[in-house]
Amino acid sequence: VPRYRLVVAYLGTGFAGWQRQPGRRTVQGELERALGRIAGAPVRVVGAGRTDAGVHAAGQVAHVDLPAAIPPGGLLRALAALLPDDLRVRRAAVARPDFHARCDAVGKVYVYRMRWRRPGLPWVGLRWAVVRPPAAWDALLAAAGHLEGRFDAASFTVPDHGRAATVRTVRRVEVRRLPWGARIEVEGDGFLRYQVRRMVGALLEVGWGRRPPEWLADLVAHPQPGARIATAPARGLTLEAVRYARAAVVDSDAQG
Amino acid sequence: VPRYRLVVAYLGTGFAGWQRQPGRRTVQGELERALGRIAGAPVRVVGAGRTDAGVHAAGQVAHVDLPAAIPPGGLLRALAALLPDDLRVRRAAVARPDFHARCDAVGKVYVYRMRWRRPGLPWVGLRWAVVRPPAAWDALLAAAGHLEGRFDAASFTVPDHGRAATVRTVRRVEVRRLPWGARIEVEGDGFLRYQVRRMVGALLEVGWGRRPPEWLADLVAHPQPGARIATAPARGLTLEAVRYARAAVVDSDAQG
Repeated sequence: VPRYRLVVAYLGTGFAGWQRQPGRRTVQGELERALGRIAGAPVRVVGAGRTDAGVHAAGQVAHVDLPAAIPPGGLLRALAALLPDDLRVRRAAVARPDFHARCDAVGKVYVYRMRWRRPGLPWVGLRWAVVRPPAAWDALLAAAGHLEGRFDAASFTVPDHGRAATVRTVRRVEVRRLPWGARIEVEGDGFLRYQVRRMVGALLEVGWGRRPPEWLADLVAHPQPGARIATAPARGLTLEAVRYARAAVVDSDAQG
Repeated sequence: VPRYRLVVAYLGTGFAGWQRQPGRRTVQGELERALGRIAGAPVRVVGAGRTDAGVHAAGQVAHVDLPAAIPPGGLLRALAALLPDDLRVRRAAVARPDFHARCDAVGKVYVYRMRWRRPGLPWVGLRWAVVRPPAAWDALLAAAGHLEGRFDAASFTVPDHGRAATVRTVRRVEVRRLPWGARIEVEGDGFLRYQVRRMVGALLEVGWGRRPPEWLADLVAHPQPGARIATAPARGLTLEAVRYARAAVVDSDAQG
């Protein structure tokens, strides 16, 4: 059975997250429904990461096995016809049989977008969270520096029954100020559940002057599972890209 | 019980239309859920028009009775907190007790947006349909002129069990060409189900050179229920405004 690698983009607003759930509209569910129609049989889609309800993706990666070989260009056109407007497969390629979208991923890039004013119309700024503007920019930038490096990120996730490995490497945290808001880009080898949104929530608490930058350095140096950190709204978060170490693709990519 | 008049905007992409349906995400359902939480009791919301699945609104109007009086500004803030990101109540006002959003409406304005190329990312052009560009613009514009006036619009709807009244007035059909697409604005006293999308579909068939403008004049002069006309995709249609003859509002509007 041929294995395919898909690059997937979605507006998270209308989805109850990536993961298939009975009776809910999810990205995995919609992809499996469309691919199942193309395959003529039930299929299972594996994503690089299970984004939460409301989180968007520009470059989520997934793999799927289809019962028969389909040229990637034809697969792409069939998916374009079957998928809803807020879910697009941007690329399809034949992958090595042992390619695994989640296990082979070596890096992820997320961008958190925030603006200071609520837009008047629902189709404006759908990927931007509305937050109170931080006044203490220097403190926020100093705190962002504390978040870079290899550390136990247990302070930034929710307790997860027995899952032990909470050490992650955050390669960079880039804060860019805009006239109407800000954009925070983070890259790392992987992120725990809620980690990016809680890192952003913690940076905002520093920016609002509620906490000093050292508070973040302490949360990094001395992990506090269940630490009281606000989780920034899902609306502002986009999974921009997933990185792989080796070329997982054997056939050439086809573009939509 | 005080009656409220609401101006509602939504991105139709993630909704199975206006009308409440068990187990489906609908605009009426989400509004009734949020207003029911505010009221502490089930409420019923009446909309000016039942937009179909995928159709958007910038200025849908609805009315609702609440068990106790709430200042419109407070109602607006509570709704902003409870409603999902793709559904906004833009204005709330106390209405006369006999105001009826559907029965009192005397006009509606719809805009149909189309572009010639599919956008690469799912959050771009969500309110724009992607269609083949029409080459015969002069014919399309001539055909648009035939659609203005008072006529039996039965050719442009689907058979509706025993509903007799299919005469409607289309006050204007304005076609605006853009570098990357087009925008068709229609205003009328009211529109039958699918009427705007079938009017647009018929205009496109003329623009593509498949039919002469006189074909449209004939569909208007001699109604043909069930006429073979393509229904333009829901994605391109937005209900822009609903018009009322008399001031239905007694308290001043509050803005979001």
